[in-house]
Order: sequence, then structure tokens, then C-alpha cells
Amino acid sequence: MNEYQERVRDVAHLSAVELFTPDLEATVDFFVRLMSLEEVGRRDGVVFLHCWDDYERVTLRVVAREQPGIGRTWLRTTSPQALERRVAALEAAGAKGQWVEGEAGFGRTYEVEDPDGHVLALYWESERYRAPEGRGPALKNQAAPFPGRGANVRRLDHINFLAADVSRNGTFLAEALGARLSEQIVTDEGQQAAGWYTFTDKSYDLVHTGDWTGANGRLHHIAFATDTREDILRACDVFLEAGIFIETGPHKHAIQQTFFLYVYEPGGNRVELCNAGARLLLAPDWEPITWTPAERAKGQAWGLQTIASFHTHGTPLVQVPLP
Amino acid sequence: MNEYQERVRDVAHLSAVELFTPDLEATVDFFVRLMSLEEVGRRDGVVFLHCWDDYERVTLRVVAREQPGIGRTWLRTTSPQALERRVAALEAAGAKGQWVEGEAGFGRTYEVEDPDGHVLALYWESERYRAPEGRGPALKNQAAPFPGRGANVRRLDHINFLAADVSRNGTFLAEALGARLSEQIVTDEGQQAAGWYTFTDKSYDLVHTGDWTGANGRLHHIAFATDTREDILRACDVFLEAGIFIETGPHKHAIQQTFFLYVYEPGGNRVELCNAGARLLLAPDWEPITWTPAERAKGQAWGLQTIASFHTHGTPLVQVPLP
Amino acid sequence: MNEYQERVRDVAHLSAVELFTPDLEATVDFFVRLMSLEEVGRRDGVVFLHCWDDYERVTLRVVAREQPGIGRTWLRTTSPQALERRVAALEAAGAKGQWVEGEAGFGRTYEVEDPDGHVLALYWESERYRAPEGRGPALKNQAAPFPGRGANVRRLDHINFLAADVSRNGTFLAEALGARLSEQIVTDEGQQAAGWYTFTDKSYDLVHTGDWTGANGRLHHIAFATDTREDILRACDVFLEAGIFIETGPHKHAIQQTFFLYVYEPGGNRVELCNAGARLLLAPDWEPITWTPAERAKGQAWGLQTIASFHTHGTPLVQVPLP
Amino acid sequence: MNEYQERVRDVAHLSAVELFTPDLEATVDFFVRLMSLEEVGRRDGVVFLHCWDDYERVTLRVVAREQPGIGRTWLRTTSPQALERRVAALEAAGAKGQWVEGEAGFGRTYEVEDPDGHVLALYWESERYRAPEGRGPALKNQAAPFPGRGANVRRLDHINFLAADVSRNGTFLAEALGARLSEQIVTDEGQQAAGWYTFTDKSYDLVHTGDWTGANGRLHHIAFATDTREDILRACDVFLEAGIFIETGPHKHAIQQTFFLYVYEPGGNRVELCNAGARLLLAPDWEPITWTPAERAKGQAWGLQTIASFHTHGTPLVQVPLP
Repeated sequence: MNEYQERVRDVAHLSAVELFTPDLEATVDFFVRLMSLEEVGRRDGVVFLHCWDDYERVTLRVVAREQPGIGRTWLRTTSPQALERRVAALEAAGAKGQWVEGEAGFGRTYEVEDPDGHVLALYWESERYRAPEGRGPALKNQAAPFPGRGANVRRLDHINFLAADVSRNGTFLAEALGARLSEQIVTDEGQQAAGWYTFTDKSYDLVHTGDWTGANGRLHHIAFATDTREDILRACDVFLEAGIFIETGPHKHAIQQTFFLYVYEPGGNRVELCNAGARLLLAPDWEPITWTPAERAKGQAWGLQTIASFHTHGTPLVQVPLP
Repeated sequence: MNEYQERVRDVAHLSAVELFTPDLEATVDFFVRLMSLEEVGRRDGVVFLHCWDDYERVTLRVVAREQPGIGRTWLRTTSPQALERRVAALEAAGAKGQWVEGEAGFGRTYEVEDPDGHVLALYWESERYRAPEGRGPALKNQAAPFPGRGANVRRLDHINFLAADVSRNGTFLAEALGARLSEQIVTDEGQQAAGWYTFTDKSYDLVHTGDWTGANGRLHHIAFATDTREDILRACDVFLEAGIFIETGPHKHAIQQTFFLYVYEPGGNRVELCNAGARLLLAPDWEPITWTPAERAKGQAWGLQTIASFHTHGTPLVQVPLP
Repeated sequence: MNEYQERVRDVAHLSAVELFTPDLEATVDFFVRLMSLEEVGRRDGVVFLHCWDDYERVTLRVVAREQPGIGRTWLRTTSPQALERRVAALEAAGAKGQWVEGEAGFGRTYEVEDPDGHVLALYWESERYRAPEGRGPALKNQAAPFPGRGANVRRLDHINFLAADVSRNGTFLAEALGARLSEQIVTDEGQQAAGWYTFTDKSYDLVHTGDWTGANGRLHHIAFATDTREDILRACDVFLEAGIFIETGPHKHAIQQTFFLYVYEPGGNRVELCNAGARLLLAPDWEPITWTPAERAKGQAWGLQTIASFHTHGTPLVQVPLP
Repeated sequence: MNEYQERVRDVAHLSAVELFTPDLEATVDFFVRLMSLEEVGRRDGVVFLHCWDDYERVTLRVVAREQPGIGRTWLRTTSPQALERRVAALEAAGAKGQWVEGEAGFGRTYEVEDPDGHVLALYWESERYRAPEGRGPALKNQAAPFPGRGANVRRLDHINFLAADVSRNGTFLAEALGARLSEQIVTDEGQQAAGWYTFTDKSYDLVHTGDWTGANGRLHHIAFATDTREDILRACDVFLEAGIFIETGPHKHAIQQTFFLYVYEPGGNRVELCNAGARLLLAPDWEPITWTPAERAKGQAWGLQTIASFHTHGTPLVQVPLP
């Protein structure tokens, strides 16, 4: 029993994402008016958005670019010591990151690429979100007022990266950052086709999904948590009226059991609204769940078949090769 | 910055509770038929119940007794080493616990009283819940089938202890077990009247509330988490038809923002159904929220006034002294 | 069997209400921003509002006045012939109404007071609501786009009038307008204390409640229907953030079983949000349900006690005499 | 204006359905355990079921047969006079019905086939559902206790018949029974492909959908109303655990906007769970909404494509001819 490998939690949580868009104003309008985030800062070509119950200053950094896609993914550590430990571990493993000055509330940050080229940004110092004078929430135990518009998403929940080599990237998350694998898809040939990783008591925070196009560094989707499934049903009508493309859902995933909806924001990035109910992953010694292609063929939890674009659409957009 | 006090998480989560009841069969019927737990074991005067998404074998140990009340509260540690560390810390602080053989799936257990006399039972070894052959869940990433009856509560969520001296008990939880204080009520005289403590990313797992009767070791309530608020509204009709006393709710707490319903199970113990939405406490350096009597006087989040019995009813039952 | 009294349905439904307010802009802001109606017209001191799935042009006519209160209640007949029949019946019964030119989409209208002085306005001709060019709904079987803000109420549902003599007013509704009594409260002395009347397959459209102040022509509340109970829970947070006074709820009525929330709009009028689930009153020969004071003493369906202001607050405001 | 055609409502509502099944016990178990109806009577090969808020004695008459399918559809009239009027109108139009003794609470009944061969059973006399002694509902304004199990459907909502000639059957419903057309699908060639008809303030009670197999007298589905959309989401998990085939949904129809789920009961008949929110069709002069194939091609309200089996599966089962 004395050989049990203790887990040290050095990464506290996913904090924020940098999103590229070819239509900055439309993307910002989508997130502000329909998803209910607030604009909290802006400079040339960059807009900072805050989600109402995120305790830090920034949830999204939206950047004008020719192509949609994902930039940095911010991860806060559990302490300044944890940040030092992770950087040491990364560098010992040969990762070539760099320290940069933080912005928008993040302190000194270590930026490093995962094997597929997604940029992870680790930091400890962080400013709290402060509502403007006279515009604070009615209840002082939440960050900002309940917006009462659109989808009312509460917080950034997780990111799903596309990766040419899923297994290699998952190993990186586990070994260099201490992420735990909670569920995965493994092909009949024994290849990991997707892996769900968590740093928290949520059952996943970062996901790697195989990129069928063979491209690198792409985004499958970013996801926001709603308080109820009803929020997601209502959001469907919000998106319907606004002309937002609903790709699939609402339905319940078999893997992770999340109630979901996928839409494309006007810039082309896929955005998920998700609700996990009261499901948590509290077992310290959780054994990863492995799903087979045969199980996947049954469709989602209630039978919805996974649609084709789910396997090909990612950002930046890549011409899908003919089979 | 190098002085930042790192937090080590040695207690993984709340696992199970021992509940006393003067009417064993009625209490078991309440939990099985109305709350949707399953009976998983029974011996003379003791019934073991399992809640459908708890990964361990037992959620409730219901024991026939003359008086309702609470016995042991099981807390699982994050590792065998963490268990040893906690026991060492407890004993260094003068706590007089004892090692006992576990039962119903729990391994060797260290039982110790908090200053108010509630028994905490720490353990590492634990058996997984296994559904009987042919009666497993449709989705293999949950412990047992979705019951589809009554309140469909997913898991044990938290326990609220009554304590003669709230502050002393909170200090014990924080110092001996590493619990974090997330919210509290402090009187105008500076006394802590209630404290909400967490071991996890949930915003509370154990609560101490001042016992106005001055008694020791009593229970205010145990709480189960539902996936949605709608589950709680539906449960109201379930309890109404079954003649279960609804004490207060459904409504939303200002403190912790939990959507709640309080009922008395037939044995007399108060039981809460709760839903936190997607709210989590992810900040590693969360600053506790302090509520004043003036703020409390506004009632719950949407204005419901706290009812009198909430301050006096606890189990074991105590004759409330006249003011 | 040939003596069965056939019911002719001459009144089709409740259409619109005229509401007085001492703070026109605050009241309009409440209904537009928080309740999600749209402003569709305005002239000096009068604002017309439309609720998104009401098929006619106007749902609320908001009028600046020194005191809050209720003006006309519009009821559409099922045909032009039905309008003539009702006017003839009213006049035969001695009612002294008058024909007026309609406005805001209503054609020629017969205005008549109920015995307590509330003005009922009967009409047949009506203009359909037409969304402004380019701003129509995504689905052509609804009147206006789903608003996606605030409470998202779907339509005006019912009106509850205060009346000094409940029974006399109910008789008027039943005999002169063909309303059916679905539920009622009768005191131990045999007095009708409140009566719920319906013209439709909904279980009530107009209610008379005894006015304890003895005043005449007052409003207890107007009510809007939401699609789900969750809409009402969410509205609670919307009102909380906006500083709107929540009087009571959310809870479920025992009488009629409506899930409810009561707030005061900034002008002082009580507004209900209600959801009946799938409950309808389809029986053509429904026997009215009678509730006794003893039954009422149990509180609402899930035990909430009726609060004192519910018996005294009405608009226009009246100084409540001391007992 | 004096030419306005008044509508007389002679049919009050849809009451009950006769369903054939090759597996009587499995079908009854589905409706009782999963859909939450109650068995209220049984004789050789026939089981009577009651849905908790239907005011009459029987909601479903389940009959053992070699093939699944639909038998009689009971429609209650608004009065005894209305029953006589409808029979006279039917016979004047050449319909060949017959009077039969009612059973299970229905009085004297006139049974007549629609042009496609579905049997409609009109009656006036009807017994109220009475809960067994000591097992009545907690609230006296509902028929039976809230079941608190499975899908908790409240009442039978509508029936969708397959018909070789949709238009001819719709004309029959409108002319012989006074049904109103609320929405329809019309092909580019001007053929009515489906028609939704209502007798009530609900937007539809009976539907005719074109039978692509050319067969007669078949059933597309029977539908039960739930109080909330959440009830339907929860029912998905109930069906998943029970191994019930979920054909499509949950999703929202564009036509009629109903939130839906379709499953096959074990006997093979398609059953819908539906929720209309607070949507009603109150306009006495509603203009039918016509949907084109181009509009249908957009899929359901939120984009779900209609699945192939929806156009071919009906009961009795018919071998679908190859195109």
C-alpha cells in the first residue's frame, strides 16, 4: 500500500481561451448578446470578454485573424510553487516554453506548446473580476450579475482540441501537467481516438480528439456550462431566431453523459453549451472508462447518430481530403 | 511569493452517513421509494442503502434507535499516505480517535469526534459499487441504473451539523482535516454562527450551524444532489402525495445559492434535496464570503423568510427552551 | 337527457389589459426588459406593448396615472354574432354599457362594468400582430420572435380582480358572459370568498377575490404564462438583479395547481408569472371544486403559507383599516 | 360581417384510444411502469389503463392481437344534443356508423370509420375516474395521485393517423366533426401531405399523415402530454435503462412547435411524449399555417433531420415497397 502513487494537483483549473475570428464584431456580438458574456476590455483587434460567474477578469480573448482557430489556453496553477514545479517538469521533459508578461489580469505566464501545437499558458498570479461601480451582482458570492439574456452560460467549462496523435498529447497532459484520464475511445487496433482529461472534480477539462484531416493545432470546440438543461433548450430558440447554425443537439452524450448543443459562432469556431447535472468525478482512484467503436456505433446516449461534420469541421478550417 | 501556503488535499470527499431512526422500515421506505436509493444490504436493525451514482458500495447506513440522529460520517482520503498524515495530525492535536475494522466496503477506518461530538470516520480502502448481475446501468460510466422513480437523487452531497460552538468545530475541520471555509455567517458581535467547509471543488461538503438549544452532536440535515431544479419541483409532488412533511422550499439560498427543499424523513431527520447548477468553487485562493445578520434578514435569495423550526429542529430531538 | 343545458361559447378569450401606473417609464421598462414584451406603439401618456406569442396587436395598454390600477379588460368574442348576443344579454340584464371605437387593432367595442366596477371591453374585429419587416419570427407559426431576454413570458394568461362582493361578480361573469366556474373558496358561513372562471380550455381566465378593504374596482394581479417552470425560476434571478420586489413564490398553488411567482412592477401593480404545465380543463361538464377555509389553512400545495399582503395589497392602493 | 360562419363545438375532446399489441404484458408494463399509467381493469385479452389526470375512467384499452395497430379512438361530445347533431350530420353525409353499448365508463357510443378506415367512437355519457378508497390524490382538483415514476405523463394528448389520402380524411374531420385545420404540409403539386386538426384550444388533437406504403387504417403514433420538457429528458433515461427503442428526439418540431420524443412500445406501436409549453390556439379565426417541402427540408425547429423510419414505420406493420 505504501507504493500508492499520490497525485499532486498543480493545475487548478482551465481559466480562459484565446479565439481567432475573421469577423471580430460578429463573434463578439454572438458571445455578448447570445451567450451573455460581457465585454470588459478592447484594444486594436482584440476584445476581452468575461463570463458572469468566472472569478477572474477574462474568460475569452477574441482576436481578429484571417482564419478562425484557437490561440492560447490559460491554466491556473494551485500555488506559485505548483507553477514552478510544472515548469521544471516541462523543461526536464524537453518542452521549450517561454515566460511572458501576462495581460488582462494574468500575471507572469509560462507558454508552452503541446505536441500537436496548441499553446498552453500556465500562471499563478491573477486578478479577481470586479464589476463596475454600481453594477455588481445582487448576491455577493458570485462574480457578476446574472445576465438574464440569451443562453446565460455560467462559466467556461472545457476545451476539445483536435490532434493528429491523440495518445501523444494525452500523455503530455498527464505527465507534464498531472491531468487525469477519465474516459477515452480506443479503436479496435488499440489506438486512442479521443481522451478526456481532468484537473478538477469535474469529469473533464481538456479533451483531445483525433484530427481526421491530419492537421495540427486545431480546435474542435470550446464549451460553456449552463446551470440547467432547460437553459440549453431555451438557447436553441435564441440561436434559431438569431440565425446561428446549430450543428447537432440538444442531446446527451454517452461519453461523460453531458447534455449538449453545438453551434458555430459567426467566425466559424464550434461552441458547445453543456450541462453535466450533478455529475462529478470524486473518486481519487477513478479507473478510466474505455469506449469501443462498437459501443460508439450505438450513437449518443439516447440514440442520436454522430453527424459527419463532427469528425471533420475544426478551426482553422481545413479542406477535408476525399476518402 | 514563496511564502504562499500550499494546500494539500488529504480528504477526497464525503462518502456516507450513518442515520438513526425510531422507525427503520418507514425511513428505509422513504429513501428507497421516494428518494430512489437502493437497499444493498441488511442485518439486524441495520440497513445499507446505495445512491445510484455513488461509486462506493454504501451511501447510507440506517440504524434502528429510540431517537433519530446521526452516527458516523465517512470521509475518504485521497491516498493511503493521506490517511496516515491526517491521523498523525489529529493525534498531534490531541484528538483521541481509534482504528476500527471497516464494514460494507470500507477498509480500516479511523474514527474520531469533532469537538461537538459528531463522529468522523476516515478511511482509504474502499470497494466499488457493483450492480447485481444483469441489473447494471445502460451507460457504463455511472454506478447503477438511473432509477426513474421519486426524486431520483444522484448522490449524497453534504451534511449540516448542529454545534454548540461553531467556530471551534470549523477550526477543527480546517486544521485537522484541511477543509476550506467558503462562506460563513458572523454575528454583529463577531461570533461565527455558521460555517460552510469544502474538501472538493464543490463549494461545501460539511457545514456547522449554531445549535440554539445548546445541545451537542446533533444533526441539522443531510443533503442529496439532484441533476436539475426540476427534479426538486417534481419531488415536491412526490412528497405531497406520500404525506411527507415539507418544512420549507423550494427556493434558492442566498448563501451558496443552492436551490433547496427540506423535508423530514419519517424517522424525524431533516433531509435536503439540493441543486447547485453549474456552480463550483475553482479558485485555489478563494476568499471566504461573510454574511451579516442584516444581510440574512433579507431572507433567502428570492425573499423567502427562514422559518422558525429551521433554527430549532435537529436530531436527536431536543426540547427547545423557552426564550 | 334532453334537458342538458348546452353551453355556447361566445367569449373566445382574454386579450389585453389596460394598466395604470404612476411611473410610466419604469413600468414600461419592467415589461419590456424584464418580462420581454415589445413596445409597439406610443402616444402621450400611453404605451402599447405586445407579448411575443399573442396573435393580436396589443397585450398591454400602459397609461400614466397618479395611482396604479386597472382600466379595461379586453375580451374577444368567438364571432360577430356572439358579440351581438352578449350585448343583448347584458342589456337585457340591465347592464349599462356603451359602444366605442376601438384602437390599437381592436374594432368596435362594447364597454361595460362588472358589478364591482371593473371595465370589460367586448369586441370581435381585431388586427393580427405583424412583426416589422425583417424582424419576424424564425418559425411562421408564432406571432413574434422568441425574445431571449428576461422572463420570456409567452402570453397574457389571466386577471385576478378584487371585488367587494365576489359572488355577485361571479354570477355576472357566468350569466352575462357565459364564463364557467372551475374552482372556488367558500367560507364556513357559505360565502364565496373567491371564484375562478374560464371561457376556454384553460382552467381559468378571470378570477374574483374578496377585497378585504371593502373597496371597489381594484386589481389583485395580472398574470403571464411562461412555457416552463424553469422560466419562472430564472425570472426570479432576473428580478433579484433588477431590484424588483418579489412578494411570494416560486411555489405551486393548491387551487388550480399553477406554479407561480408574484412581483410588484415599479408602478405598484402585482404581476404574476404562472405555469400550468399540461393541465387543461377539457370536461364539458366539469363540476366546480370548492375549497374550505380548513383546506386553505394547509397553505399552498407544498406548504407555503399565504402571506398577509396577499390579502390586502391591491391597486389602486388602499389604506388597510386596522382590525 | 353577418356572413361570418359561426363554429359550433360539438366534439369536446379526444378521450381514449384502443391499442393492439402482440405482447400484451410487455405493452401494459411499458405503459404502467415507464409511462406511469395505472391498470384499472382487465378481462381476457383486454387491459384498461388510466392516465393520472384524465378525468374519465379509461385512457387506453390495450388489446392482445397478432399485429400491433389502433382500434377505436374515443371522442366525447360537448352535450347530448351535440352527439345527436354529429350523428345526424355523419349519416346525412353517407357515413355508415353504428350505435353500440359503451364499456369501461363510456355510455352509448356511435362508431364510424373515417375514409381511411380508422374507427372514431363518439359518445356523451361518461363516468368520472374515481381513485380507489384511500388512494386518492393529495389535491382534490386532479383525478389521481401524481405517480412519481417513469415519465409521469399527465394525459393523452393527440393521435396521428396514417392515411392513404390525407386531404379526404381531413375534409371528413372538418365537415363531419367540426374539427379545425391549424397547420398542414402541402406538396409543390398542391397535395396535402399532412394535416393537423383541433377540436379544442390546443393546437391539435388529431393528425393525418400520408401513408407512403399506401396502406389504410394505420397508426403513426399516439401522444401523451408531459408537464415539462424536463419530464421528456428524464424519460429518455428511463427508456434507455429499460431498453426501449428511442426512434428520434428529444427535439422541437417546427410544425406546431411541440417538444417531442418518439419511442416504440414493446408491441411495436410508436408513442410520442410531447410538451407544448404554454402554446395554445385561442384565435377563433385562426388561419391555417401551410408548410412547403422546401421549409420541411430545413429539418425540425433546431435542425434535426426527419429520419427515414418516420415516413415508413406505422402499425399494423407493412412491408415497405422498394422505391
